[in-house]
Amino acid sequence: MDEENIGLVVKPNSLLAEETAKKVLQALEKHNAEISVEELSRDYAFLSGYPSFKLEEDPPPRIIVVGGDGTLLRAFQRLCRDDVMVMGVRAGRRGFLLDVEPYEIADRVEDFLEGRFRLYRYTRLDVKLNNKTLPCTLNDAVVVGKTAKVIRFNVFRDGERIYSIDGDGIIVSTTVGSTAYNLSAGGPIIDPGLDAVSLAPMNPVQIQLRPVVLPASSRIRIELRPASNEAWLILDGQHVEDVYEGDIIDISKSSVPAVMARFKWWENYYERVFTRILSYW
Amino acid sequence: MDEENIGLVVKPNSLLAEETAKKVLQALEKHNAEISVEELSRDYAFLSGYPSFKLEEDPPPRIIVVGGDGTLLRAFQRLCRDDVMVMGVRAGRRGFLLDVEPYEIADRVEDFLEGRFRLYRYTRLDVKLNNKTLPCTLNDAVVVGKTAKVIRFNVFRDGERIYSIDGDGIIVSTTVGSTAYNLSAGGPIIDPGLDAVSLAPMNPVQIQLRPVVLPASSRIRIELRPASNEAWLILDGQHVEDVYEGDIIDISKSSVPAVMARFKWWENYYERVFTRILSYW
Amino acid sequence: MDEENIGLVVKPNSLLAEETAKKVLQALEKHNAEISVEELSRDYAFLSGYPSFKLEEDPPPRIIVVGGDGTLLRAFQRLCRDDVMVMGVRAGRRGFLLDVEPYEIADRVEDFLEGRFRLYRYTRLDVKLNNKTLPCTLNDAVVVGKTAKVIRFNVFRDGERIYSIDGDGIIVSTTVGSTAYNLSAGGPIIDPGLDAVSLAPMNPVQIQLRPVVLPASSRIRIELRPASNEAWLILDGQHVEDVYEGDIIDISKSSVPAVMARFKWWENYYERVFTRILSYW
Amino acid sequence: MDEENIGLVVKPNSLLAEETAKKVLQALEKHNAEISVEELSRDYAFLSGYPSFKLEEDPPPRIIVVGGDGTLLRAFQRLCRDDVMVMGVRAGRRGFLLDVEPYEIADRVEDFLEGRFRLYRYTRLDVKLNNKTLPCTLNDAVVVGKTAKVIRFNVFRDGERIYSIDGDGIIVSTTVGSTAYNLSAGGPIIDPGLDAVSLAPMNPVQIQLRPVVLPASSRIRIELRPASNEAWLILDGQHVEDVYEGDIIDISKSSVPAVMARFKWWENYYERVFTRILSYW
Repeated sequence: MDEENIGLVVKPNSLLAEETAKKVLQALEKHNAEISVEELSRDYAFLSGYPSFKLEEDPPPRIIVVGGDGTLLRAFQRLCRDDVMVMGVRAGRRGFLLDVEPYEIADRVEDFLEGRFRLYRYTRLDVKLNNKTLPCTLNDAVVVGKTAKVIRFNVFRDGERIYSIDGDGIIVSTTVGSTAYNLSAGGPIIDPGLDAVSLAPMNPVQIQLRPVVLPASSRIRIELRPASNEAWLILDGQHVEDVYEGDIIDISKSSVPAVMARFKWWENYYERVFTRILSYW
Repeated sequence: MDEENIGLVVKPNSLLAEETAKKVLQALEKHNAEISVEELSRDYAFLSGYPSFKLEEDPPPRIIVVGGDGTLLRAFQRLCRDDVMVMGVRAGRRGFLLDVEPYEIADRVEDFLEGRFRLYRYTRLDVKLNNKTLPCTLNDAVVVGKTAKVIRFNVFRDGERIYSIDGDGIIVSTTVGSTAYNLSAGGPIIDPGLDAVSLAPMNPVQIQLRPVVLPASSRIRIELRPASNEAWLILDGQHVEDVYEGDIIDISKSSVPAVMARFKWWENYYERVFTRILSYW
Repeated sequence: MDEENIGLVVKPNSLLAEETAKKVLQALEKHNAEISVEELSRDYAFLSGYPSFKLEEDPPPRIIVVGGDGTLLRAFQRLCRDDVMVMGVRAGRRGFLLDVEPYEIADRVEDFLEGRFRLYRYTRLDVKLNNKTLPCTLNDAVVVGKTAKVIRFNVFRDGERIYSIDGDGIIVSTTVGSTAYNLSAGGPIIDPGLDAVSLAPMNPVQIQLRPVVLPASSRIRIELRPASNEAWLILDGQHVEDVYEGDIIDISKSSVPAVMARFKWWENYYERVFTRILSYW
Repeated sequence: MDEENIGLVVKPNSLLAEETAKKVLQALEKHNAEISVEELSRDYAFLSGYPSFKLEEDPPPRIIVVGGDGTLLRAFQRLCRDDVMVMGVRAGRRGFLLDVEPYEIADRVEDFLEGRFRLYRYTRLDVKLNNKTLPCTLNDAVVVGKTAKVIRFNVFRDGERIYSIDGDGIIVSTTVGSTAYNLSAGGPIIDPGLDAVSLAPMNPVQIQLRPVVLPASSRIRIELRPASNEAWLILDGQHVEDVYEGDIIDISKSSVPAVMARFKWWENYYERVFTRILSYW
């Protein structure tokens, strides 16, 4: 697929996403952009006529994702490479990771086409379950008991034990993910300028255990202890694996960052984080 | 079943529980107690010869439970009445609610038979799902998203809204339950002398939401909002119900307390709570 | 002083309070109320001509306080009786306890004069330092190390030890005070319908120690241990005492509640609590 | 002072420190070490005969500190250079930073003299108040209101605002300091392998504000807002400065790390952190 092509990924089954995507399409066509559409997004009638691509196989070098944080995280799980840049357009209540608002689509699409943005390379996690490689993880890898049962597990960093926990589970998050689930579970916010991983125990019986922040380069191992209840391993809230006693989860920094074009780098990051909650009461 | 009968409930499939129960049996027989055994516990060969009873139907007026907190909580769910008193013997790692240790079984069984103990009446919760009455609840009623998905729900007290939450769920605990799951989730310890209910939000997106302590007499309602993901309602970590958007959970003080004979009322309660965690590293 | 008299207490040295108090005065005079002014508040020229009263000695039976939470707390410390009712008018950024806003002064003063309000009787704390009685306490009694030094102390309830702490100190708060300093320090919100006391340890070295909620009837004792650094005992953020090693602080429920007339009892209490923070970024 | 000299710093006025220091002295003399004693420590009679040195002026290249964490922190404040290495011998209840126990003094002193240890270079903070340079800071810089009054302040990182707080204050800690005051105040543990700074707000009125972890290279500025109450700036719990409204505190990574010889680098760091609290009940 040639260098000029712009790919489109749209959240499925959403009137709001459909409407928003139409504005994106309009802006792209105004600039005579060459357009292709991600396979599944072609379910929308107004997109069905465009050439299609698969995120895992033949993505164009520039992609616009329309939807919420879930849509973007799913797209990046399948787009496990760093030679494709993504622009995010918010269509939904929650879109912390997507910085283009519907009202400004025309201007931002033009900026995207003409290179007026800042490129960010976000560290991702490489997650293996019993040596099997799992999808690329941008926000967090969560180990949590099934049906809210207490699980028993150990957590190691480069061979040294950090925790021995009986509890709901643990959240391992990247810098980007630190303001998501990690924050709700009592983990700290990691500044975007620091490449680190946060460990946040979830409701441990051992109430003295607290969040730990590690270098992103750490090799983290989580081991379900004998006689533990079963657990799920959940990547970015999207991909789910079963975990049994004795299973081993290895987490390390991925060699493949997620690449995003951002248009509001001048905005105050912390104001964005701390006022986000105001929309929820 | 006559007034003199002593019932026995034993944690299933546990060598430790079996061994401990044998000591209890020996002490009972030394005092020529009339013994019956809970139906399922008769799976142990050494108990199969005794007359049986069902906790829901014909429990004797005094019962000894051998096992961990889970065994006791399960027994009380089925024993939804206050004319039966329970003595707990710990056989397992966790037994915060059971105050008799294996080494002192002979003495405490004699105390139990001869009335040397203090009776405690613990408030329980009456929980209804869409008006259907569920098992008696001693520790806590937990609403939590399936497969760790965020759920959206409102919480009311006597018709007034307390919370509107997007998060993992919420723990509603009694005074007795306040030192269990509630404590791990950041809820306060409620003094045994205060009849209250603690609400502890679990990992809310709205990080400004904090635990609330209500009078035990409050009528609490939890309502899964439209478009919420599905949830489980879990009572005392034992009984599980499915909850769907629009479903209504009503929680109020049960008219039937749990009645326990306790032998170590002179012990420091808070020392017990705060040092319990030390056994876990 | 006769039954018809209305007393006025105004926050000192504040243009905003002066302006607000003028509106209150205007409303009172429109209804030909008989007016007296608290001694210190007569420093304002426009109030100097009215008869004066002292809060400790001869308060009229109905008093209007104009200012912020600090003004109200100070007034109640001096007004240690329950035969005087107080109406609060907010003149300042923070006024959680004062429910009349400047724009509605005319209507609420009329309501106050004609008895259209709901009376609330708020539990206060009786605090003694080495048996010396201190001012009435509505929100909280705080023990905290001087110059941020770690102090060592024990906390007892009815003779039983709850905590042994090395840390910054502890907050003992009433139900009303639970949404103030207690909440910031990680303590729970206590529902207005529950008469209780919250203990919130401040930055303890023993990180497993958590907030405890007690019956309001508890007799709480705090004892500075030998070799502890010196501390302050601070009541409602207003009254300060020095505390030395070996000193004993006794806290119990006061027999004299604070009596307030409230005009917005129909408002959602929890919405008020959780949205209060929104005004701060 | 020549390269072979070993300096001795002893906690003042402590029988335990005196006893411990005598053992250190004995071990040094057994190896015919050339010994000098820090000026103030010569108040102990058994040390008064040795040549003296000042930490600020002419410290020998190797120093043994005997005491608790406070003694070590004070020594490093005065020893603001990185060409002197320090060995710590614990004589006191709290000595997280000092890894030699009294029973092993003979062996560890020999190790120190013969170079059998691992050298650690710990990042310190450079703190300026209104451009005046303050002592070297190893653990934390704390801004806290005097007499527990709420202060109002802003916190910036490289010119961008992170927080606007009304509260007790804030703790700015290094990686080493993260397990001290920062941990008690709800801040995360920073792994020794990560060079970072943790910001932990202390009891903010804005309860949605959470700890933030920054790169150690950040330029942090704290500004007391107009109309704020007065504050103290406290470095390592030892050095205190007054701070007034409008004052500016600048914090950045010092170019001069603290250099320590450690003998138990093989020990589990996290076990040490999480079990430390066990000695306190």
